[in-house]
Amino acid sequence: MTQPSDKALVPFVSVDNMMQLIHHIGVEEVLKGLAGYIEDDFKRWEQFDKTPRVASHSDVGVIELMPTSDGEAYGFKYVNGHPKNTSEGLQTVTAFGLLADVYTGYPVLLTEMTILTALRTAATSAMVAKYLAPKDATTMAMIGNGAQSEFQTLAMKAICGLKSVRLYDTDSKATEKCAKNLAGLGLEVVPCATPEDAIQGAQILTTCTADKQNATILTDNMVGVGVHINAIGGDCPGKTELAAAILNRSDVFVEYPPQTRIEGEIQQMDPDFAVTEFWQVVTGQKEGRRDPRQITLFDSVGFAIEDFSALRYIRDHIKGTDFFDDLDMLADPDDPRDLFGMLGRAKA
Amino acid sequence: MTQPSDKALVPFVSVDNMMQLIHHIGVEEVLKGLAGYIEDDFKRWEQFDKTPRVASHSDVGVIELMPTSDGEAYGFKYVNGHPKNTSEGLQTVTAFGLLADVYTGYPVLLTEMTILTALRTAATSAMVAKYLAPKDATTMAMIGNGAQSEFQTLAMKAICGLKSVRLYDTDSKATEKCAKNLAGLGLEVVPCATPEDAIQGAQILTTCTADKQNATILTDNMVGVGVHINAIGGDCPGKTELAAAILNRSDVFVEYPPQTRIEGEIQQMDPDFAVTEFWQVVTGQKEGRRDPRQITLFDSVGFAIEDFSALRYIRDHIKGTDFFDDLDMLADPDDPRDLFGMLGRAKA
Ligand SMILES: NC(=O)c1ccc[n+]([C@@H]2O[C@H](COP(=O)([O-])OP(=O)(O)OC[C@H]3O[C@@H](n4cnc5c(N)ncnc54)[C@H](O)[C@@H]3O)[C@@H](O)[C@H]2O)c1
Ligand SMILES: NC(=O)c1ccc[n+]([C@@H]2O[C@H](COP(=O)([O-])OP(=O)(O)OC[C@H]3O[C@@H](n4cnc5c(N)ncnc54)[C@H](O)[C@@H]3O)[C@@H](O)[C@H]2O)c1
Repeated sequence: MTQPSDKALVPFVSVDNMMQLIHHIGVEEVLKGLAGYIEDDFKRWEQFDKTPRVASHSDVGVIELMPTSDGEAYGFKYVNGHPKNTSEGLQTVTAFGLLADVYTGYPVLLTEMTILTALRTAATSAMVAKYLAPKDATTMAMIGNGAQSEFQTLAMKAICGLKSVRLYDTDSKATEKCAKNLAGLGLEVVPCATPEDAIQGAQILTTCTADKQNATILTDNMVGVGVHINAIGGDCPGKTELAAAILNRSDVFVEYPPQTRIEGEIQQMDPDFAVTEFWQVVTGQKEGRRDPRQITLFDSVGFAIEDFSALRYIRDHIKGTDFFDDLDMLADPDDPRDLFGMLGRAKA
Repeated sequence: MTQPSDKALVPFVSVDNMMQLIHHIGVEEVLKGLAGYIEDDFKRWEQFDKTPRVASHSDVGVIELMPTSDGEAYGFKYVNGHPKNTSEGLQTVTAFGLLADVYTGYPVLLTEMTILTALRTAATSAMVAKYLAPKDATTMAMIGNGAQSEFQTLAMKAICGLKSVRLYDTDSKATEKCAKNLAGLGLEVVPCATPEDAIQGAQILTTCTADKQNATILTDNMVGVGVHINAIGGDCPGKTELAAAILNRSDVFVEYPPQTRIEGEIQQMDPDFAVTEFWQVVTGQKEGRRDPRQITLFDSVGFAIEDFSALRYIRDHIKGTDFFDDLDMLADPDDPRDLFGMLGRAKA
């Protein structure tokens, strides 16, 4: 066994360490912290090297790489989306990510991102809702009670002061699971038998379902004036959740238009359908909610900068802790040009 | 500490395990094996999902993601290129890669790829030279004696029957290192003081230098009739090694034209400069060398399919060995939709 040099070692956050780190900090604190990092990066949106994610589609799902860089750090996430997986005992979405130093090109963090993606997606939703939801929003309809649902709900509590959540899923077992997980966390939790029931009295409507098709989770008549819609599940070509008529009545806010026009709810609309880039709301260049009767819609597909923020957060928060292992991932000979010599010496 | 499920575990080949695996099989055997895997994948080139690599450029280097898929497996490599790194005690090129199952989207292999990239680049060069170099080629000029150089040389020995190598580098220390590493491996090794000396009697001219600029490693008058040029170092926009006049006299073979036109030697030429896609030589659709006086040029930039072949090779060859560790990288709750419940249970 050859002793790797320091530079060869990449801090790795396993699933177990991620969970321990989250409990060490506290789930709601993590969600608040992530929302802060994401908001900071939305504020300096123009500094980033941006590109739509690089997707490899198959009949049953998609594998994506989501890179971005702020000129100092470079980050990317690997993520899959396979709606049929749950029926085979696997996750719809799994992910891992990496942060690297732009100046040397050397990786500085490798981490699980399945849990982290759920957290960053929820933190983004809540950060956006803070700007767009009606001021007195205390009740959310949560439609789709799968893996993301508890995170979405808790983030709305931690960041927007949500008091009550109304759950609906076509699979009542998912609703039961979600209600059980949310019990005792300081929220009123109301399982509902129909989507119509779920939206009663809700100021925030979150759709977070998984199906590889154009679905209609919300019909036009379900959406009353003044609500904020947080549309999470439509995030792939051919995969949407909302009736097109809703989009015509809403002010639509997006992450990165070149990606959202392909993947989001607005793939149903003309290529010049008007949208607001949400980062401009954060910087104050564009208005968020301006009218209590306005319908606001966050057409979320998930963008690389949110993962970058999450990677920064983890990098900063594992410092001085034991929540990572050092991975011997980079060949780093003493003489950089002597890769072959290093290999030879490993024989002895 | 929660016990991760089997599906959560991703086999990881560390730098140390990679080196042990290589010695277990034998370096030349690995090069031959890799060349075979790469040749097989070139034969079924049309089955692959192909895209130019996704590059993030900075003033000092580049970070790239290189994905591809054959519909069953998906692979990608992370690789940097930072010519200034060696002067700071770091590698110009470091890399790691991942293979995943297209059907589930779950990763099935994570591996170091700094060493593996050197091996696959060399195996590709030699596999190509087998088709293009003059039949009696026994001598190679190796210009640029850095990290790749010994691998390039050994692959030409193992796959093309090279007997003698003539080394040149602007830095004589690099030549010394290369000569020392190649001693006793069954080759005649001749260090040379000038590039003109290095090319004496050589049928194969390999350029493998690193410099972020348009350099002229070979001038037009250095290239005689009948030789095969293996141009490795020009692999980035603004980074070339050959005088344009050489390209006009050569038959140029490339990996994937949309990438090579941006990154290869042919970035110096018009966008419609004639090239042959090398995979068509492997399938027999196009001719390789047809004339002993012909100058053949492999304008290599490195393509994702070669990394895919290398990942397949490693996946197949670690089976039943101890040369990997299981990495707890994927969150995989018993109930796929109960990600939050899994997190909760990890608290106890
Ligand atoms: N926008 C983003 O940034 C982002 C991030 C992560 C995940 N996602 C997407 O969010 C969606 C949900 O992810 P998940 O991990 O929770 O998936 P999941 O498979 O764990 O849960 C999806 C749930 O939706 C339910 N469902 C399906 N059709 C429904 C319908 N018509 N009405 C009500 N419920 C229905 C299913 O029964 C299931 O419980 C996925 O489509 C995923 O791609 C988006
Ligand atoms: N085509 C591919 O698939 C592929 C794969 C890997 C690396 N590369 C490229 O190959 C090049 C070499 O990689 P490396 O890891 O060996 O780099 P390295 O930095 O270890 O070695 C480069 C060597 O080139 C020498 N050099 C620089 N200018 C020279 C000149 N004018 N004449 C002679 N020698 C000169 C340097 O002194 C150094 O020893 C890099 O540019 C890299 O990007 C290409």
